[in-house]
Amino acid sequence: MKVLVIGAAGMIGRKLCERLLKDGRIGGADIDELVMVDTVAGDLGAGVTFARHAVVDLAQPDAAAKLIAPRPDLIFHLAAIVSGEAERNFDKGYAVNLDGTRALFEAIRAIADYKPRIVYTSSIAVFGAPYNGAIADDFFHTPLSSYGTQKAICELLLADYTRRGFFDGVGIRLPNICVRPGKPNAAASGFFSNIIREPLAGREAVLPVADSVGQTHASPRATVEFLLHGATLDGERLGARRTLMMPGVPASIAEQIEALRRVAGDAVVARIRHVPDPAIMAMVAGWPASFATPRALALGFKPEASFDDIIRTHIEDDLGGAFVS
Amino acid sequence: MKVLVIGAAGMIGRKLCERLLKDGRIGGADIDELVMVDTVAGDLGAGVTFARHAVVDLAQPDAAAKLIAPRPDLIFHLAAIVSGEAERNFDKGYAVNLDGTRALFEAIRAIADYKPRIVYTSSIAVFGAPYNGAIADDFFHTPLSSYGTQKAICELLLADYTRRGFFDGVGIRLPNICVRPGKPNAAASGFFSNIIREPLAGREAVLPVADSVGQTHASPRATVEFLLHGATLDGERLGARRTLMMPGVPASIAEQIEALRRVAGDAVVARIRHVPDPAIMAMVAGWPASFATPRALALGFKPEASFDDIIRTHIEDDLGGAFVS
Repeated sequence: MKVLVIGAAGMIGRKLCERLLKDGRIGGADIDELVMVDTVAGDLGAGVTFARHAVVDLAQPDAAAKLIAPRPDLIFHLAAIVSGEAERNFDKGYAVNLDGTRALFEAIRAIADYKPRIVYTSSIAVFGAPYNGAIADDFFHTPLSSYGTQKAICELLLADYTRRGFFDGVGIRLPNICVRPGKPNAAASGFFSNIIREPLAGREAVLPVADSVGQTHASPRATVEFLLHGATLDGERLGARRTLMMPGVPASIAEQIEALRRVAGDAVVARIRHVPDPAIMAMVAGWPASFATPRALALGFKPEASFDDIIRTHIEDDLGGAFVS
Repeated sequence: MKVLVIGAAGMIGRKLCERLLKDGRIGGADIDELVMVDTVAGDLGAGVTFARHAVVDLAQPDAAAKLIAPRPDLIFHLAAIVSGEAERNFDKGYAVNLDGTRALFEAIRAIADYKPRIVYTSSIAVFGAPYNGAIADDFFHTPLSSYGTQKAICELLLADYTRRGFFDGVGIRLPNICVRPGKPNAAASGFFSNIIREPLAGREAVLPVADSVGQTHASPRATVEFLLHGATLDGERLGARRTLMMPGVPASIAEQIEALRRVAGDAVVARIRHVPDPAIMAMVAGWPASFATPRALALGFKPEASFDDIIRTHIEDDLGGAFVS
């Protein structure tokens, strides 16, 4: 089968592609061709013959049509202008996140007798306060950012194009991804990962909010599993509601810290410094944090069992099995 | 103040314009200019000096910019390709209902220091089965038509453009409008109006579903009141959720018929003929029919008190006060 990954150079995109390159197959079928696309160039794993990289900007005219011309059987669409940039640059956010995605959908629709599976990643940014307890599968979308608006719109388009038979779409709405590897992120939500990743690397981390703040987490490894499961799921089981909120591990900051203590010890935890930031605290108060996800669980999507597991996964996958104790 | 009505030749558009022409003012302010726009030409009330008609297709390039150039203070955007046509013609539905609306929003955004009130009409087609009792203000949107998808997307855009300060948007999501004047409608939902309007005019009407089928109704007159109230409402009171589900009168078909009997007598009711249509019955089963609308009620939107009142309003407004007994 032919697989196309759009947004292959992002954090999840890279991990997904590494997995596809390693497995060489998905859902029982061999991958004959893997095309990994992003707006920047990437590297291939050594010795891989069925894969290639391409530099493509989905917001450019005809870019989508050229990508789709070889008729990939399976398309992962992970590409997006991130939240902060989409808020700063209104036109760019809409051009890429909405119009780029719609161009992709239209390029698929333009080919007769072609109905690929498309796996689209959405975000909890589709939700906005006030909440009424844990956010249920049938809770209203009130994006409080242009990024969240664009994601909510594309969820609607994904469902309509699927209903009309133009493709077979599955939306994967991700909880907070933790632990993010790499450098501390400029995103306001970066502290959820920073307070785990930095201390494990021997560096100090700043916690800008109260330790009672809660969030729902999935590791990058679990996220890749969500995407692979979404790629092979029987679409008929989804009915008209094509995007699924993924399950995760609910944890307060205090629970994250206690998990870190259990996995890595007191000395590591001592590297977290609490420096309250009223601006971040105010933002966090409106974030969606708690989800009831019976549909995804019933369809076989699996969260980690505990935040301890999320930390161990980070140590295995991103730290080569060791941390600075 | 300057008022622009887009979609002025439709059933609600005409009634709204008649009301604006008659009142000559809205929310305590005189109307200095009323521009009534549609894709077809219309007639003006006699002796009106502050109003003019224009034939404009919002889906054409620059159409929106030209409409907005005089900077209307208040814009009613009622124009849409209706449900059945948007389903038959995918491109046309998206071009008008999504891209036309977005072009209007963009034309407003393009003018600095201009922030009009825009009243946008949405539809219960944003909802789709399964429901969990009465549809609440925070219930998920699952459109089961391209028309409903386009309406749901424009609700999201309305909220984002408002949040960003480009205009001050209010979305009015309408229940079933009943009694629709004019000829029997080809729409599958036409029977809700047909069984009242046709017997009152001395003609036979066909009822294609069981009389246990329920729906929520507002008269055209109440609908115009919704739009006028939406035009003058303090936007701050809406918060981030800019579209409101309007309240209506819940009634089963049996209750509609008993109301007709009370208002018009047995002889009129005897003109309803029950001819079950399995295709229509199957469609109706998935329609949203019952709504809890605490937000709109708290904000002062008023439904009729009973279905009897809805029938009396039809007789007054559309039949000159008399019916065929």
